[in-house]
This record gives sequence, C-alpha cells and structure tokens, in this order.
Amino acid sequence: MLFFRNDYGKGCIPEILEALQNTNENDYEGYGLDTISKQAKELISSHMPDHNPDIHFIHGGTATNLTMIRSMLRSYQAIIACDSAHIATHETGAIEATGHKVITVVNKAGKLTPESIRKAYDEHMLTYEHMVYPKAIYISNSTEYGTVYTKDELIDLRAICDELDLYLVMDGARLGVALVSGVDYTLHDLPNWVDIFTIGATKNGALFGEAVVIVNDELKEDFRFVMKQSGSMLAKGWLIGLQFLTLFQENRFFDIAMHENNMAKAIQDGIDAFGYPMFMKTNTNQIFPIVTKEQFQFLSDKISFEVWEKRENSYVIRFVTGFFTKKEDVVELLSLLKKASQL
Amino acid sequence: MLFFRNDYGKGCIPEILEALQNTNENDYEGYGLDTISKQAKELISSHMPDHNPDIHFIHGGTATNLTMIRSMLRSYQAIIACDSAHIATHETGAIEATGHKVITVVNKAGKLTPESIRKAYDEHMLTYEHMVYPKAIYISNSTEYGTVYTKDELIDLRAICDELDLYLVMDGARLGVALVSGVDYTLHDLPNWVDIFTIGATKNGALFGEAVVIVNDELKEDFRFVMKQSGSMLAKGWLIGLQFLTLFQENRFFDIAMHENNMAKAIQDGIDAFGYPMFMKTNTNQIFPIVTKEQFQFLSDKISFEVWEKRENSYVIRFVTGFFTKKEDVVELLSLLKKASQL
Amino acid sequence: MLFFRNDYGKGCIPEILEALQNTNENDYEGYGLDTISKQAKELISSHMPDHNPDIHFIHGGTATNLTMIRSMLRSYQAIIACDSAHIATHETGAIEATGHKVITVVNKAGKLTPESIRKAYDEHMLTYEHMVYPKAIYISNSTEYGTVYTKDELIDLRAICDELDLYLVMDGARLGVALVSGVDYTLHDLPNWVDIFTIGATKNGALFGEAVVIVNDELKEDFRFVMKQSGSMLAKGWLIGLQFLTLFQENRFFDIAMHENNMAKAIQDGIDAFGYPMFMKTNTNQIFPIVTKEQFQFLSDKISFEVWEKRENSYVIRFVTGFFTKKEDVVELLSLLKKASQL
Amino acid sequence: MLFFRNDYGKGCIPEILEALQNTNENDYEGYGLDTISKQAKELISSHMPDHNPDIHFIHGGTATNLTMIRSMLRSYQAIIACDSAHIATHETGAIEATGHKVITVVNKAGKLTPESIRKAYDEHMLTYEHMVYPKAIYISNSTEYGTVYTKDELIDLRAICDELDLYLVMDGARLGVALVSGVDYTLHDLPNWVDIFTIGATKNGALFGEAVVIVNDELKEDFRFVMKQSGSMLAKGWLIGLQFLTLFQENRFFDIAMHENNMAKAIQDGIDAFGYPMFMKTNTNQIFPIVTKEQFQFLSDKISFEVWEKRENSYVIRFVTGFFTKKEDVVELLSLLKKASQL
Repeated sequence: MLFFRNDYGKGCIPEILEALQNTNENDYEGYGLDTISKQAKELISSHMPDHNPDIHFIHGGTATNLTMIRSMLRSYQAIIACDSAHIATHETGAIEATGHKVITVVNKAGKLTPESIRKAYDEHMLTYEHMVYPKAIYISNSTEYGTVYTKDELIDLRAICDELDLYLVMDGARLGVALVSGVDYTLHDLPNWVDIFTIGATKNGALFGEAVVIVNDELKEDFRFVMKQSGSMLAKGWLIGLQFLTLFQENRFFDIAMHENNMAKAIQDGIDAFGYPMFMKTNTNQIFPIVTKEQFQFLSDKISFEVWEKRENSYVIRFVTGFFTKKEDVVELLSLLKKASQL
Repeated sequence: MLFFRNDYGKGCIPEILEALQNTNENDYEGYGLDTISKQAKELISSHMPDHNPDIHFIHGGTATNLTMIRSMLRSYQAIIACDSAHIATHETGAIEATGHKVITVVNKAGKLTPESIRKAYDEHMLTYEHMVYPKAIYISNSTEYGTVYTKDELIDLRAICDELDLYLVMDGARLGVALVSGVDYTLHDLPNWVDIFTIGATKNGALFGEAVVIVNDELKEDFRFVMKQSGSMLAKGWLIGLQFLTLFQENRFFDIAMHENNMAKAIQDGIDAFGYPMFMKTNTNQIFPIVTKEQFQFLSDKISFEVWEKRENSYVIRFVTGFFTKKEDVVELLSLLKKASQL
Repeated sequence: MLFFRNDYGKGCIPEILEALQNTNENDYEGYGLDTISKQAKELISSHMPDHNPDIHFIHGGTATNLTMIRSMLRSYQAIIACDSAHIATHETGAIEATGHKVITVVNKAGKLTPESIRKAYDEHMLTYEHMVYPKAIYISNSTEYGTVYTKDELIDLRAICDELDLYLVMDGARLGVALVSGVDYTLHDLPNWVDIFTIGATKNGALFGEAVVIVNDELKEDFRFVMKQSGSMLAKGWLIGLQFLTLFQENRFFDIAMHENNMAKAIQDGIDAFGYPMFMKTNTNQIFPIVTKEQFQFLSDKISFEVWEKRENSYVIRFVTGFFTKKEDVVELLSLLKKASQL
Repeated sequence: MLFFRNDYGKGCIPEILEALQNTNENDYEGYGLDTISKQAKELISSHMPDHNPDIHFIHGGTATNLTMIRSMLRSYQAIIACDSAHIATHETGAIEATGHKVITVVNKAGKLTPESIRKAYDEHMLTYEHMVYPKAIYISNSTEYGTVYTKDELIDLRAICDELDLYLVMDGARLGVALVSGVDYTLHDLPNWVDIFTIGATKNGALFGEAVVIVNDELKEDFRFVMKQSGSMLAKGWLIGLQFLTLFQENRFFDIAMHENNMAKAIQDGIDAFGYPMFMKTNTNQIFPIVTKEQFQFLSDKISFEVWEKRENSYVIRFVTGFFTKKEDVVELLSLLKKASQL
C-alpha cells in the first residue's frame, strides 16, 4: 500500500541512526545541558548571525506550544489564532489547560490577517478587564492547510504586533517546507518579524523533536523552568540535540524539505493535469484534491491517505509527502490518480 | 439623569435591608451552613416539589459559573456555548483559567440550537482524543440579548444532551425576567430539562447573590469543596441566604421580575410607536433600539445607558429596567425618545 | 449560649447598616468603579501619606489570596508560607488551583522566620530549574495563632526579601487587632516592608470585604483583570467600598479592633488567674487555653467555641472575641471558666 | 573520568539501536496506535496474566506523573507523598501546575507509611471542605533514596488505601532495580496492590520512555485525551513501543536491572570494607556514602558523581550504576575509594 497519509509515519533519515550509533557510548550531561545540544544550537544560530536567540529542544509539538504560551502570558492574557490553528483544534485544549484562552478568528487560506487581529483586539479592549487581554498571536508556517506566509504578510503581521504590543509566535512544525517553497525570505529573516518560533524536525527527517527559538529577550528568562514544569525536558536531552545537529549539517534540513516539496509538486501537477478540483493550492508537502465517492473507493483501497473533510457528494482528501517519499511511489500514485480520474 | 444603564446599579429592595437589620444581632454558623440559608433553600426547593435539588449560594455570577463548570468537567472536557454567552465573552477567561475550553458556536438571537451543538460535537468526535471532549452545554436564560428560551427549545436541548451525554447548564443571572416573560413553564419545570442552573438575585432586587440549583445527582458530590477552593464560599454565608429567603417570601422574586418586564414593555411599545429600528426584540428587561448619531448625542446627555454596538452611522444602545425603575422615569424616558425620534 | 466561636458569626456594626440604608436609592457605577469606593480608597490611603498604593476591594479572604498570588507569579514560581498559614491549610488548595506550589516551612508561633525562608530558598536554588522558583513569601498578621509580628521581625523579613528578590505578601484578615495589639508600628509603616497586603473587614465589624493594598508598582498592572477572571469583582462593588468607608471614618476600624483585644485580654487574664495552661499566648482576639476532657464537657454545654486540637487527655480550645462581644458575656464566660477550673 | 553520576547519562543498549534500524523503513500509525506498541503492551501484560491493565507509553517521567495525576483527581483533590518524593521536589511544581496540591509527610527511608497517610488524611477530614480532599497516594519504587518497598509494606499501603478510599500510584522510574533487589514479589503481584504504576525504561537501558500501567478500571477512561492535552503523546509513538518491546524480549529489562544492582552491590561492599559511613543502605543501583572534604576533593577529580547533601564537615555523595556500567569501571572506582579512605 502506498503511504501518503502524513509526514510522520516513518522513522528518520539514516544519518540520524548513524549519529545515535556513534555517540551511544559517550556520557552526557542530562536535561539538554550537554555539548551536543550546545553544538546544535550554535549551528542553528549560525543561520541567524545578526541575532542572539536562545534555543531549546522539546520532544513534540503540543508540548512545545503549551510550554511557549504558558511561559509568555500572565494569567488573564490570551493568544489570538485562526480557527484552523493547531492550538485551536488538535491539541485537546492544551493551551486552555495552562489557563489561557485561545481567541479564534476566521482563517484566510489557513492564515491570520492583520485585519482579523485588529478586529479581535478592538473587541476585547471595548470592555477592558471584563474580557481576556490579547497579548500574543499564533501563526503556523507552513499552515495547517499547507499554505505559506509571504514576506509581505509577515512584515504586516509584525507591524500590527508592534502597534498593539503583541508577541508573535510562529509554529514551525512544518517550517522547513515553508522556507524552501519559493518565498523570498530565509531563516535569517525570521527574527526580524517573530518573537519566538519553532523549527520542527519530526516531520522533516528526524525521529522526534522541535527546536524553540526565542528571539525576544523578554521571553528568554527562566524558560527552562517552564519546560521542566511542563514535562518538556527530556532526561537524555542530547538525543534531540543530536538530531538537530545532524539535520543542520550539510544542509540536510533544507534538502529534505525541498525533497518533500518536489515530490508534492509532482503530485499536484498530475492532479491538475487529471482535472481534479482542489480544496486548497499549496507550494508545500500537503496536497488537498477533491474526489468523488467512487474515486475515493478506488483510491483508498490502494493508498493510505487522510480524509480531510466529508462533503455531501465528495471528499476532500490529503496526500502528504515525507523525507521518505520515493519517486517510484509518486509515479504509482499518479498512475492510480489518472485511472481514478476516468471513473 | 435618568438611569437605564443596567439592572445592578442600585442597592436592593427595602425588605432586604429590614431583614439584615432584624437578624444583625443573631449569631450564625459560618460558610453557608446556617439556619437562614437552610430555610431559603427549602423555600426555593418548594417550587420544585417533584425534585430534590442541592442548593448553594454564591456571591456573584462569574464565580458561580467557574465553580459550576470546574466542578463538573474532567481536565480534557469542554463546554459548548454560543459566541454571545457570558462565559465566552465577559468573564475574562474565567473558565479557561480553570483549564477548560469554551467551544463557541454562532448564536441565534442569543441562543444555542440543537443543530449547532450537534455540529460542534461531531467535529470534535472526528479526531477524538486530538480535540477536547464536549461534555456540557451552557445557556443563559434570559440570554445576553434579552431573549428567552421557549419550552420547546428547552425540550429539544434536553433531547440532544441526552443523546450526546452532555450536561445542560443554565445561567439564570436573569432567570426571573425569563420566567415571567409569558413562557409556558415555571421554576417547577426546569429540573426536567436542566442538570444544573442558577437563580440570579443581584439583578432581581438583592444586593448580591446567585443560587446554584444542582438537579443531577452526579453533580452534587463535594460541590462545597469546589466552592471553597474557588473563593466562592462567603464567611457570613447567611447574608446571601437571607436575601434569597426574603426574595422568595410573598412572591417577591417574581413580582420584581414582572415589574422589570412591565417597565421594559412600556419602553419597547414607545420605541415601536416612535419608529426606531431594533437590534433585537425581547420580552424581558433589556431593550435594544438603534439610534442615529444625532439621536445618540441628544439622549446621552440626559439618560445613562449603554452602547451595545457602534455601527458606521448608528448606535445599538441598551436600556435596562431594574427593581428600582419608576413609572415616572419611564414616562420621562419616552418623552425624550419621542423628541429624539424627530431629530 | 455564649458565643465565642469566632469573629465572623454575627452581622456588622449598626453604622454599616445605616450607610446601606442611606445610599440604597443612589445609583452607582458597577464593578468597584463607583464614587463611594473611590472615597474609601482615599480614606485608607490617607493613613499612608508617603505612599501611593493601589487599593481594591474583594468579597472574601480566600478569593483575595488566590487573586493576589495568581497575579504576581509566573507559572513556575511559588510562594513560601509557614505550615500554619491559611493558604497552606484552610483554603482547599485555592493557590494550587491557580497552578502554584505553596512551599511550607515549620512555623514559629505561627510565624515565618528569615532563617526558614533562606533555608527553603537555598534548597530550591540547589537544583535550579528542577524545582519551583520561590518568588514570594506569605505571612498573616495577626497570624492564625493570634500572634503578631514585631517591627523588628517585619524589618528582618523585608531584608531577606530584598536580598533574595522575593515579594512580601501580608494577609491582614485580622490586621486590625494586630495593629492595636501594642506594636510600635502603624498602617503608615506597612508599605515600607510589604509589597502587597490586605485589610480584613469581615472580622472587624463589616458584613464582608477585604481591601487589597498594592504597594509595589510591579504588582499594580492589570490587577482588575485578575480580579474579574477570579470571580473577585462584585457587580455592586460599592457595597464593599461603603463598608470600608464607614469603618475608616471616625477611627471605627481601630476602635473595633481595640474592643476585640480588650475583651480578649480580660478573658486571657481570667484564664491565667484560674491556672489553665495555654497553647499559645497572644495579644489579639484569639485565646487558646488547654482544658481537660471534664472541663471541656462542662464548658461546651454552655459556650459556643472551637476545638483547635484534640490531644490524648486534653483539648486545645479557642475563644474568639468580635466587634459584637459584650462585657457581660465575658463576665459570664469567666465565671464558667472559674467553675470549670475547679473540676 | 569514571562515570557514576546517574543512570541516564548514556544512550541505550545496542539491541534498541538495532531495532530502530530494522524498523526504520516501515510505516506506522501515529500517536501510539501502531502495531509495535500493541505488541509491546501485550508482552508487558503477559507478565500480569490475571489482570487486564491498560498500558500507555510516555516520553518522560515528569510528563508521566502529571498526566496520571491530572487524569485521576477532581479539581479539589490532592495526592499524599513523602517529602522526598520526586513529585514533591524535582518536578518544578508540575503537579501543582495541573491544579492539585501535593500533601507532603515526612519520609521514612524514602518511604510513605500507613501511619503518616492516616495522620494526613485525618487532619484533612477535620475541617472537611476547608482543606483539600486527599484522594490518592504517590510512592516511588525503588524510592528516590534507592530503598525498596517490601511486600508487607505494599500490602499495608493497599489496606489503608482501601480503608480511606485512596488511589495508590506507584512511580516506577526505577522499578526494574526494585523488582530484582531480592523482594518476594514480581510484576505479576503489583496489580493486586496498586491502582496505577509506571515502568521506567529511561534508566533501564532505553533512550527514553515510561510505560503507564493502569490497573484500576476507574482510571482507564479517556486517558489518551489527558495524554494529548498534556503534550504526552508522541507523534511517532512506536519509538517508545519499540524500546519496551525490545526490553521485555529475552528478559532484557530484568537482566539490565540485575546488572545495575550487581555493579552497585560490588561498590557497596567495597565501601563497607573501607569503612565509609552511609547515608542510606540500599539494595538497588544508588549508593550513598558519606565522605570527608578531603576525600571529596580526591574523588571528584577522577569520578563524575553527584553531591546529595552538603553537611558541615562532610558530603553525602551518590554513585549510580547504569546498564552501561562496566566491571572494570567498578574495579577502578573501588581502588580510588580505597585510596581515599586512607586520607
């Protein structure tokens, strides 16, 4: 069965297994204070030479989000996110469990806009202390819909955050594929616009791990306390450092992301050629065709994929490519899609 | 200046001050375990002779809501409310501060509908443990828009709650005016449909106080622990009991509510006669006319009222009647509204 | 039956009922923003002319404590208190429910000492982010044991708080009786030593109410948000303002406290004369004699009081005086104690 | 430098790296619902054939504890632990951050006793809803001091938990070394006494991972929701399943633990022979000698170990053995200890 269900359904790139093997007999300081993690942080920082970020490694995405947001907000403060945001949907209320409201606004292709932020902010200021205080915004890049913020969009978000005194949090669980999707900005630019962001490795070639990059000095203090309190500090912390070190050596992180995008583009091109309608057009590793019930039956027998949305007479389905996606699998997928398009 | 700003801007009915005077030298058991509170509970219970509710008294509305909801939900469970609900707006994230998400759906004249509940529930069940678990619904009656649930609507809400295994919470901060608004149900009927509800006294003639009426046995256990933990247990608890006792003697609670509605109806009738458009039509003590900017200027000089919504060329404003509203004030208000209508 | 069970078992001084009567027909801004509350705050502030505190009124003690502490701590920070502290015992985990640990140390006559603070602090710094971060200390004055901090003790606490960068929180639920217990400091001095403190009215002549006095500017910002979020903002907020205004007019607050202490001293003197051993000697309104089981039987038939501790062959019992305690009741109590002493 | 600092300072047994290699190209269901995790659960369950536990895998110890405890307690309920318990000390208030108080009692060689539980319980029941409600007890086995609960002790703890209706939680971060320390019980027996327990792999040969074994049916419902909410559900969940599968195949888990104990015993025997006083005698992999300042200087130059406690003229130090500890390292350690003993 062809596997296009998600980008976290298989292990990791072989270099990471090798690195685990090679370091297995070394002894390290625990809880992320080891030399390997330090090297990894320096290597990541070297992509942002004009900035001086603090970097921390956490095992998974929900833990990362709840740790960051708990760390930055006072009890009555809230974070604005769009209704498709991961923290607003698929984290089982992890943010609310830390005591904070997620203020949701309608997404625009998976994105938050300055207008929706201003509107939400103004509504909350109207009765002041009778409503939560919006103090941060959350965006995902690439988004849950596979779309990517443009440079101008990020500049505009920064401007409104500056105006309204909001922190800008970027969830980069799929940051790799965003950065190599053709945008005219790089890792180097992000600190200009973002107060804190993450770099996801789980979906970009590693076994597990997210890097938290804290740009704004105000958010740096005592972050490790919040990590420990939140169960987000691994005893053998170097395991995550080692993965990031491996990924950021020899440009692997970006090459993997580019591979994911290339595989996805081939699928997207085929889908266009075969005439399928699309739920959303993306430049990253998630593809959202709309198929009929018949087509769905045919495809689901042979391909592992996710149903994104059930509609009356059709299905929005999602194909995702990973570091592991092979050309021949894409070829086979396209062949099946072609057949299905004739049903 | 005429006062129509809200229903909690003045003290209380004189009988409550008398009762305070008459009992001032008695000594009572603290924390709501006194004989007065017991009498008050029995008197309220006597309106629901077929049921055996537990009743508790709490000083204010937000404290009541957070205590009830904290008490009934496990950490990952959430409550569904409409976007105009008090807990979703003007409680500064008090529910989220107890760790629970408020799932909001679009209101229909301030109300929650079975369709919106089912849709929210189904969406959450789709990915199961990746989203919060909806375990309760919250309605206000009368609503934040002054509207009242009909008997049929309550029966339908009960049905969907039974089907989906949800608790039904009714916030009765303005329950009095709802019950005497012409609906074909009484306090006696509520336990048939509702798992837990409140009876608001603050806006119905008292200095302060909400009664929590717990109908569902599952929700009764250890409620006083949650009250104490939440800062919702007054040392001199009999002060609230005494106010409820006074209100429920000689039908005062309902007479006050009826007075509020009558005063409001007179205002509404005048507004209709003068040709003002309305934001919302209600049968209770909140009236929402839409006025021009000129009319607004004229009125706001002479009347204390709230702006509900600023629109491009008009204002939605709100007049509220209270136990204290006098006929002559209504006459004067109507005279001013007549003049303004000619601007 | 004689009432010496506590200082919150009866209503209030008559002047407060009069004030309620006199203002009942006025209309006020809600949620504590009224003119009466403003006057009350100014009157309280006038006792501290060299300082510029923010003052807020909250309905009860547990709500006040949880609001203050939630407001000042970041998620991983904790507050040090002695094991007899109200927040560590009789608030049903209200502080922990806001997410914060109460670090307890052994009390010394109900008090916290610089040595115990330093020890707790040092222990926590040892493994740094693996333990909570102590950021505040909590003291009660008078304490739960009726004892009072001396001026020197407060100066020493301030010194260690300055050294270790800790906030000093003083719970003044029974501050009145402390201030008139013969200490050589007044309300005027407290802001020199304390970052935030409360002035309790519930046990000092009022129906209910605590004033929060925020001295440290760092703790002032957005306190009303935390109040509202915590259910600590009363709709008819002027009710508390009015009580404080009445208490601080004509020196009533301190006269009441002095009366409580005088009544208690008479009881204490008698107890000494009759030869009862004491659990704790105090200069305030709580008296803790130790009685035999026989004496206990005799006394508990005729007097309402609390058992503080059951020991093998004796009971520690507690007599408390209130604004309402009458000389003749004290005379009768002493007569009974004399009889019991001969059993 | 000899490494005896802890049991989590090195990677894992080679078989786990091999297993990662062998499965790296397979695709798996995410979030722990994969076939490997299922096999691992069945293998662990096969050690408890008379029981039907639910088993879940979590990445680390603090996350595991907070997830378990959050899952089992209502908002006002608390857990009793001894003052040396990990949740009471080195988890940065993770339990309090979920809203729950940890009631601490004095430990007896790192253990909780029925007497201390009863005393704490009785104290809390005295004022009932004014204090938190103790609903569970937490023990570590082996304890933070390396000691192990005897069969009789566990039976006695079960008895008091039954009597007082408390859940018994056993933190098995170091359960392996406890089970092979010479006690007359096995994994098979634990479900008779314990409601929920963990099996730690991080310190027993794996890279990371704790297994939660839920024995009591009441605690099974919706545990995965709480995991997800707490950031305790790994995307590539099979990684933990795979490690447990490998450890429980061919008795590895117990062999590793036995190796750790054997190495530790050799050290302990030497220490006894050389005449060092001990802080605590254990049968597991933690050894706590007391050394003079001179000895400390000598040893700390050549051996990596932890200082457990600084005393006036001496240090309590801790040597820990791991799966990776080699005989020759122990020989060298003993030789250094012998030399130091002559200083």
